[in-house]
Amino acid sequence: MVQEEIRRRNAGALLRHVHLRGPLSRAELSERMGLNRSTIMALTTELSRLGLVGEDSPVDTGRAGRPSLVVRPASERCYVLAFDVAVDRLVAARVGLGGRILDRREAVRPRAGPDLHDVVTVLARFGRQLHRAAPPGACCVGVGASYCGMIRPGDGMVRYGPDLGWVDQAFGDELGRRLGLGLPVSVGNEAHLGAQAEQQRGAGVGLDDLVYLHGDVGVGGGIIVGGRLLGGDSGYGCELGHMVVNPYDGRPCGCGSRGCLEAEVGERALLDAAGRPAELFGRAAVRTVADDADRGDPMAREALRRIGDWLGIGVANLINLFNPGVVVFGGMLCDLYPGAAAQVRGRIARHVLPVARETVRLRTAALGDDATLVGAAELGFARLLDDPLAALTAPVSPEVGVPTSAPVPGFRRRQQV
Amino acid sequence: MVQEEIRRRNAGALLRHVHLRGPLSRAELSERMGLNRSTIMALTTELSRLGLVGEDSPVDTGRAGRPSLVVRPASERCYVLAFDVAVDRLVAARVGLGGRILDRREAVRPRAGPDLHDVVTVLARFGRQLHRAAPPGACCVGVGASYCGMIRPGDGMVRYGPDLGWVDQAFGDELGRRLGLGLPVSVGNEAHLGAQAEQQRGAGVGLDDLVYLHGDVGVGGGIIVGGRLLGGDSGYGCELGHMVVNPYDGRPCGCGSRGCLEAEVGERALLDAAGRPAELFGRAAVRTVADDADRGDPMAREALRRIGDWLGIGVANLINLFNPGVVVFGGMLCDLYPGAAAQVRGRIARHVLPVARETVRLRTAALGDDATLVGAAELGFARLLDDPLAALTAPVSPEVGVPTSAPVPGFRRRQQV
Repeated sequence: MVQEEIRRRNAGALLRHVHLRGPLSRAELSERMGLNRSTIMALTTELSRLGLVGEDSPVDTGRAGRPSLVVRPASERCYVLAFDVAVDRLVAARVGLGGRILDRREAVRPRAGPDLHDVVTVLARFGRQLHRAAPPGACCVGVGASYCGMIRPGDGMVRYGPDLGWVDQAFGDELGRRLGLGLPVSVGNEAHLGAQAEQQRGAGVGLDDLVYLHGDVGVGGGIIVGGRLLGGDSGYGCELGHMVVNPYDGRPCGCGSRGCLEAEVGERALLDAAGRPAELFGRAAVRTVADDADRGDPMAREALRRIGDWLGIGVANLINLFNPGVVVFGGMLCDLYPGAAAQVRGRIARHVLPVARETVRLRTAALGDDATLVGAAELGFARLLDDPLAALTAPVSPEVGVPTSAPVPGFRRRQQV
Repeated sequence: MVQEEIRRRNAGALLRHVHLRGPLSRAELSERMGLNRSTIMALTTELSRLGLVGEDSPVDTGRAGRPSLVVRPASERCYVLAFDVAVDRLVAARVGLGGRILDRREAVRPRAGPDLHDVVTVLARFGRQLHRAAPPGACCVGVGASYCGMIRPGDGMVRYGPDLGWVDQAFGDELGRRLGLGLPVSVGNEAHLGAQAEQQRGAGVGLDDLVYLHGDVGVGGGIIVGGRLLGGDSGYGCELGHMVVNPYDGRPCGCGSRGCLEAEVGERALLDAAGRPAELFGRAAVRTVADDADRGDPMAREALRRIGDWLGIGVANLINLFNPGVVVFGGMLCDLYPGAAAQVRGRIARHVLPVARETVRLRTAALGDDATLVGAAELGFARLLDDPLAALTAPVSPEVGVPTSAPVPGFRRRQQV
């Protein structure tokens, strides 16, 4: 029984290695996992039988000896559906094992208005289309979603979605029901998921301490401490957008306070500072300011400097508190950071203690606008990676909504919906 | 071999339970550890044979059945030496298993001046006195020290001690050498140790997420995230005292920046706000302001309000970031917090998002000024608690400085020094 448990854990660990790092030779897996070659061979044989990995002959290295087979994630065989409810768009994707986005659908989202029913209707239609378009034999192993608001840990309930005005909406349950795939939907906050995706596959690979700032209308945060997402006592930590940076004459914030980081560096602060009319908003308007600054427009440059100065104070505080290996700027901050970097670095030089300042790196999100979507996909993969042998062989109890009569119990093959 | 390893781990876990929670019946231990009664009996017998726990008959509960024996830590048999280099005093204590302070020595520390040699001379003399005064048969199982500055993780090097002007001083090594007990000295930052002590034995028992603010000349921080001290990429996180709270006309800070939390709420800020002359300083002066405010002195009250306002902004930011179960005020903030609480709570109400605000508690350090000392003692107990059977039976290699000819190998009995 203990042996069996160890075997299951090792299978999960091996699958996670190739899922996160891409193709690895059996020799590399043996070294990384501290297991001998025959164990690695047995595990890959089993995972291969389940269709989760494939093995290829390696490219000839010119070295003596029999080269080690390369194990790769079978990205076409097992996939998840990933969804992203962002402030300006709705995205759905079919993401294969290994994190590859295989297919996607996207819709522009009106800034105000859509209620739970509207959003879920669009996403569920996209999801069913993606599912139908999957190749024969492919199977969906999970569903994950990213949402631009506060999510209750555990059940995918949107506690508070500031831009849509949602309060206590059962988003995860409703999306799962409307998809009709018999799979539960795991939901996470967009900045939390962006942080995790950047740590796993982006600007923070190999680092256990990372701060991710996600800019859109406001500024969300995802903070990785010692390799784990900071949750806090009730799962609502990481709210760096509501750090007070301007206690005197701060701009009013959507939270009811003034001078919050997101009030000083969010979309409206930037557009106002750049003298844009109040009816202009959205990512395109933000990009225009960044482009104008690039071309030397004084008002746009001054706006970026102003944003950069407040952003720098916030980032300096975060570096003193978290001593991260990297600070990652995501969402619209990807567009703004290059033009604001001098101010941010200036504030860091002024406010951060040398020991933490010397080692920290500042980066824009390596996954760009897909960071949140890729993070959502990982939620969908979680159960498979925890125990791939159980996930693909054991029937799942009806409570989680998976009919045990499905062709591969626990998962849904592609089928007409 | 696996069985043996499980036995060792269980012995460590049992000892940790009674060390941290005090006397527990065998039945309670069985329930908390998920082990059956006969395993608990075997473990307590072995720990008892090594002199680490004692067993007492329980008080008659009046209930039927044979009552379960109560297991208690043998606090007189095994002890550590704990040291505290604070801004205003040097403390040394003999602390018994179970965290009981059995004996202590204390000296007033001049604010400026003492170098490594001076400090270590006093502490080593205290340490040897405490060691000599221990009862026959008692043995010292470790040495821990708290220091009011930045400590390099791993080797007890003081990277930066702002109040003493120390830079890269090998405090741990030097104290170990001068103590002459053949035991290494583990050193930690005072606020980190205070946070851990408050979580283990003070205001944060049972909580995995805690923010501890330690006030003295400045403000240090110890932050527990998910049950573990936040270290950061290189071990220098938690620097909440250098969070910028006043970016406009902030007071100058010792770090070279302006408007840091510690510049706005530290000792000098308070004494200046209360109109005290520049030559007054120290804990007694701080207490006088708090007492005067209590008696209704308007200037002292206004000073506490001012401090409370900046402290409140800092604490609000920390609650938004960490969603802690409790915020603990230690050091001189123990004295100031009661008179500043209204301002702090006002700022929290204004700036913290409701979900995190509803659950957080605000407390002064339950261990008072001993929080840092008690935290230092835990450093000394770490090796024993990790594996009590190995620690008390296996010889320790000479590299860590313990002569293998010691009566109980690995530890030093009381002896004339």
